[in-house]
Amino acid sequence: MRCKYGAEDALWDGSLDMSYQQQISLGTKGHGDTQDITGQVAAVVNSSGVKSGIVNIFNIGSTAAVGTIEFEPGLQGDMPAILDKLIPPSSNYGHEQTWHDGNGHSHLQATLLGPSLTVPIADGKLVLGTWQQIFHLECDVRGRQRTVLVTVVGD
Amino acid sequence: MRCKYGAEDALWDGSLDMSYQQQISLGTKGHGDTQDITGQVAAVVNSSGVKSGIVNIFNIGSTAAVGTIEFEPGLQGDMPAILDKLIPPSSNYGHEQTWHDGNGHSHLQATLLGPSLTVPIADGKLVLGTWQQIFHLECDVRGRQRTVLVTVVGD
Amino acid sequence: MRCKYGAEDALWDGSLDMSYQQQISLGTKGHGDTQDITGQVAAVVNSSGVKSGIVNIFNIGSTAAVGTIEFEPGLQGDMPAILDKLIPPSSNYGHEQTWHDGNGHSHLQATLLGPSLTVPIADGKLVLGTWQQIFHLECDVRGRQRTVLVTVVGD
Repeated sequence: MRCKYGAEDALWDGSLDMSYQQQISLGTKGHGDTQDITGQVAAVVNSSGVKSGIVNIFNIGSTAAVGTIEFEPGLQGDMPAILDKLIPPSSNYGHEQTWHDGNGHSHLQATLLGPSLTVPIADGKLVLGTWQQIFHLECDVRGRQRTVLVTVVGD
Repeated sequence: MRCKYGAEDALWDGSLDMSYQQQISLGTKGHGDTQDITGQVAAVVNSSGVKSGIVNIFNIGSTAAVGTIEFEPGLQGDMPAILDKLIPPSSNYGHEQTWHDGNGHSHLQATLLGPSLTVPIADGKLVLGTWQQIFHLECDVRGRQRTVLVTVVGD
Repeated sequence: MRCKYGAEDALWDGSLDMSYQQQISLGTKGHGDTQDITGQVAAVVNSSGVKSGIVNIFNIGSTAAVGTIEFEPGLQGDMPAILDKLIPPSSNYGHEQTWHDGNGHSHLQATLLGPSLTVPIADGKLVLGTWQQIFHLECDVRGRQRTVLVTVVGD
């Protein structure tokens, strides 16, 4: 990545351009909706011009998560199903007793899987296994409009 | 973030100032104690002067964790409760059979939730949802003095 | 970390050297094999010359994971055992019904624990607790040759 120079010539203004940020917008269909966002993250990495470094993928909000998985139809269903088995919907959560919005399990699932994923970049590309994709998982009980912020850091 | 210049003038010494680090100290009350550390992390981001980039929040030690959650009283209790359900206290863990310190489940819970969280920074501020806070969870069986290291990288 | 200058003299070419990357190769013995990779990650940090920043450790592939743990024999067995209890081998996963390769649980375990860990660097060294090590966990059902990519970002 290149330092920023003043407009006219080589007089460097002292600021550095070492990070690049872009949002991804996603519409989700509700609880358990799993989307492959690898292509969109790769496009941000490409736009950044960064050849070597890391990219952070962050779901803004407390009831959705990101991770990596082999994105095939079986696992697309298995992942939300195992989370529902481990952290089932229930009216017994303290969250429910206060808010009664039916998504206590959504919060807990999203916190456990996590909102943040960091993936390395080499040769200007995401480094992932052949069968490893970046996914977004909606944990909330209804469809939501989601913003995922992608931040590239490197050179 | 600005490059460092030599003391006298514009003769740049070639070193870069692209990261900023500060510790947060926390006293915890024992197993399941959940604390909102968003304000403290935001203060470090502010001190760093970084406008765009990422911040890493890391619990030093193997029996506490960090994450994001809607920090309201219900979920503050639900999160440690679900971890205790999934990974209950037990004398059957191999860790217990060697060490007999009663915190085998603490280690496993902390490893599963994880000691490390990375959050993006935009416009000089943490990027989080309105109902999304950064929390620290004590998994150990007694109160501990904790150090969380906050590292900001960006420009 | 230092900026890169042109070959002859102080004519800076404008590029920055703010990240450093190196692979770790690991042979694993199959499901539940847990290895301490702290020393190998520390060696990469040392080679990078970075004094302050972060290091990302990423398992390339969808059926292994990384994390931190007190790396002692008890927990080395407890961690894969608890994952097998939470996400047991089963032919009922959608993944199995399509692929019949017996590793549906491996994928789900690896996704839940996660392929990516970020650890801070201070004074040129990894910041970890005394009883906190970086581990690699093989979740697949057979031994595999693994590549872990270590990326250092900082100054």
